[in-house]
Amino acid sequence: MSTQPVSTDAAAVKAADRAHVFHSWSAQGLIDPFVVAGAEGSYFWDHDGNRHLDFSSQLVNTNIGHQHPKVVAAIQEQAARLCTIAPGFAVDVRSEAARLIAGRTPGDLDRIFFTNGGAEAVENAVRMARLHTGRPKVLSAYRSYHGATAAAINLTGDPRRWPSDTASAGVVRFWGPFRYRSPFHAETEEQECERALRHLEDTIVFEGPGTIAAVILETVPGTAGIMVPPPGYLPGVRALCDRYGIVLILDEVMAGFGRTGRWFAADHFGVVPDLLTFAKGVNSGYVPLGGVAISAEIAATFEERPYPGGLTYSGHPLACASAVATINAMAEEGIVENAARVGEDVLGPGLRELAERHPSVGDVRGLGVFWAVELVRDRRTREPLVPYAATGEANAPMAAVTATIKAAGVWPFVNMNRVHVVPPCTITEAEAKAGLAALDEALTVADRYAA
Amino acid sequence: MSTQPVSTDAAAVKAADRAHVFHSWSAQGLIDPFVVAGAEGSYFWDHDGNRHLDFSSQLVNTNIGHQHPKVVAAIQEQAARLCTIAPGFAVDVRSEAARLIAGRTPGDLDRIFFTNGGAEAVENAVRMARLHTGRPKVLSAYRSYHGATAAAINLTGDPRRWPSDTASAGVVRFWGPFRYRSPFHAETEEQECERALRHLEDTIVFEGPGTIAAVILETVPGTAGIMVPPPGYLPGVRALCDRYGIVLILDEVMAGFGRTGRWFAADHFGVVPDLLTFAKGVNSGYVPLGGVAISAEIAATFEERPYPGGLTYSGHPLACASAVATINAMAEEGIVENAARVGEDVLGPGLRELAERHPSVGDVRGLGVFWAVELVRDRRTREPLVPYAATGEANAPMAAVTATIKAAGVWPFVNMNRVHVVPPCTITEAEAKAGLAALDEALTVADRYAA
Ligand SMILES: Cc1ncc(COP(=O)(O)O)c(C=O)c1O
Ligand SMILES: Cc1ncc(COP(=O)(O)O)c(C=O)c1O
Repeated sequence: MSTQPVSTDAAAVKAADRAHVFHSWSAQGLIDPFVVAGAEGSYFWDHDGNRHLDFSSQLVNTNIGHQHPKVVAAIQEQAARLCTIAPGFAVDVRSEAARLIAGRTPGDLDRIFFTNGGAEAVENAVRMARLHTGRPKVLSAYRSYHGATAAAINLTGDPRRWPSDTASAGVVRFWGPFRYRSPFHAETEEQECERALRHLEDTIVFEGPGTIAAVILETVPGTAGIMVPPPGYLPGVRALCDRYGIVLILDEVMAGFGRTGRWFAADHFGVVPDLLTFAKGVNSGYVPLGGVAISAEIAATFEERPYPGGLTYSGHPLACASAVATINAMAEEGIVENAARVGEDVLGPGLRELAERHPSVGDVRGLGVFWAVELVRDRRTREPLVPYAATGEANAPMAAVTATIKAAGVWPFVNMNRVHVVPPCTITEAEAKAGLAALDEALTVADRYAA
Repeated sequence: MSTQPVSTDAAAVKAADRAHVFHSWSAQGLIDPFVVAGAEGSYFWDHDGNRHLDFSSQLVNTNIGHQHPKVVAAIQEQAARLCTIAPGFAVDVRSEAARLIAGRTPGDLDRIFFTNGGAEAVENAVRMARLHTGRPKVLSAYRSYHGATAAAINLTGDPRRWPSDTASAGVVRFWGPFRYRSPFHAETEEQECERALRHLEDTIVFEGPGTIAAVILETVPGTAGIMVPPPGYLPGVRALCDRYGIVLILDEVMAGFGRTGRWFAADHFGVVPDLLTFAKGVNSGYVPLGGVAISAEIAATFEERPYPGGLTYSGHPLACASAVATINAMAEEGIVENAARVGEDVLGPGLRELAERHPSVGDVRGLGVFWAVELVRDRRTREPLVPYAATGEANAPMAAVTATIKAAGVWPFVNMNRVHVVPPCTITEAEAKAGLAALDEALTVADRYAA
């Protein structure tokens, strides 16, 4: 019915992009975007039909793969019924999305505040924690990403924070456990766990427990390197938070909804946070959606006292309809189980095998379809293949690795000195193996820079 | 194709809402949400078929009305083609949405950074201004709303800021012109304008021009009361910003895309800002979308230097497709012109006529389909019908007014002592008149509290 069709000529699309689209995290004059024409399942392609196996799940969000027919149909049906309605109303798909999410989240996280994405989820979780406790500070970890709005970027422990850093944002940063680059000089996993907890408790005690509203952690830090914490760490953090009356926020924007082979990464550790943030996998990003799952205790704080936060599109019907269809399809089709199985049977063993053969691989770690391959110049010193926050020439080795994987028809997620292997949770064993073969080629390139 | 249909039983929808949906800006235990079953054009209805004329456009976002067939079809078609793709790629609908928006925005605001909503647009505009100028502070107005993420809420000049106020957020607040409640004790429109500009310049000079990155203003402040500025004000602000090297951000999240009877409210005043934020009307909120339109000069700052901001769903394909269809339909169907005409022929004259008959009406002001009716206890003293930020008993008169309008089948947008008349831009003259008739009834209730 639309009378002015959109140009699908690749050159025109790119020309209009370069003239009018301002791209995130980029120097506008130095980018040459790949033009996408379509996508399905684990693949996307350009206007000439060149296909890429999507080993990135875009920004680690298309957990259900591209263009899942049940989710597409649900969006189309909901579009015909009711595209939008204000947050103050009750509406069937919003109720149902909240009910389904609450039914999957750990423990008593049964009330859902919807947002459009991850950053807004973090913003609201922090607001809830501050108002619930009446305390100002939030503790967050180095090697983390929590989004790019003011509060979220100040909680973030990666270089993307630096240009927007507000020294006075009420954030105190600490170090989480990371066996491969131990901030605590630990020699065993147990030691790393124990020392990381001691470091966190010391930080709490010296900052003043009565000044700390929340500790926020990615259950498994994602963009910063997929560092699966030792088994005792999160239970230990939970215990510290309980001891000091601090709200525990687990950010599962990237790790949630099947990515780790469980519905939530917290399920691996038997931990129930007070607030859990989600986005991405909740509906694979088919429509912008995020949110906060809220414990009964924190929800009670806002029973009679108004919660002072909101956004025009909280609980957006089209987004909620796509979440309902996504969650149901994931359950019906065993997609979370598939992620676990592919991780255990193919990605884990396959990556470890690559690590044995390629001297440039310093470490391989992950769960489900959530893996990082850390590249080094020297396995002994663990010197990263490129320096922290490298750009331009200094980043050339990683640029070469990335180009090689792409040339082999696989689209990776690359951050600093790491290649993340983060395909959709729906990926087949054969696709996963094909992706590993492309990575194998690229590691041969990386090996040239390694001792 | 989805195998588990969503319950459409109103009682079940409400029960699941109360159990699982955490509502914005609300005390969760004190709300009783209206259950919406469907909507079309200027109306929405519940499961018993009770229709309301939507005089709120939800949160002043459905400029094109509910379920516009061209926009619904575009969403369905795009859902079948490509629901989502990461921001780093070029894709036809994203290019086209940016091109169409850039073609409507004033002056050289030709580069579009897409977000999911208004708050994120404001967050990014402020970041751009700070990095472009290298200066820390932002000046914003009392009587304003800019969103609820940390930076946006701190810029906001209404009580919703108070619980999230960060004294150190680098924000300095000033007063804008408001003839009816002049902060400057002005006696004429010209005096109000002159004094408001003098106040702003004094504030700039005393804060230190070299410390100020931006002045942010809603072109016509919306939620805070639809105060149309005097003709010379915004050109005067533009001149001050030029004189002191300050970025001018106009927030048109609510006022843009037809609301005032022009594509952008800035068009009424012949002013070109450096950054213009939008959301809501760009696609009537059918899919969450917002953004920043960026001047050539500011875009140039990020030609070789990376812009340090982003979000997973920047330039979301489904959202962009709905924006393309919305903008084209608005142009083809003369929807902006309709908003202007209904404002001039029906709403303006009709509201002024109500003001003459109802002693509770202190002031009526607006443009297009963007009007405020300010209710007072006493026309002479201008004492508001309820105090600023009133709740509970103190707010009873406004609660009674609201209930009366709703009982008459019209859904208003009410804020403090004001009823905002903000129907879709597609509203017909007959519908507008029907809405005014309901308002007439409600004003009779308001009159009981007025001297
Ligand atoms: C753990 C985590 N939190 C928050 C975010 C921010 O989400 P969004 O980009 O939707 O704002 C991300 C995005 O990558 C994330 O990985
Ligand atoms: C002028 C203005 N700016 C920003 C916002 C925030 O937009 P959102 O609710 O989409 O975050 C609003 C919302 O009402 C607004 O009216």
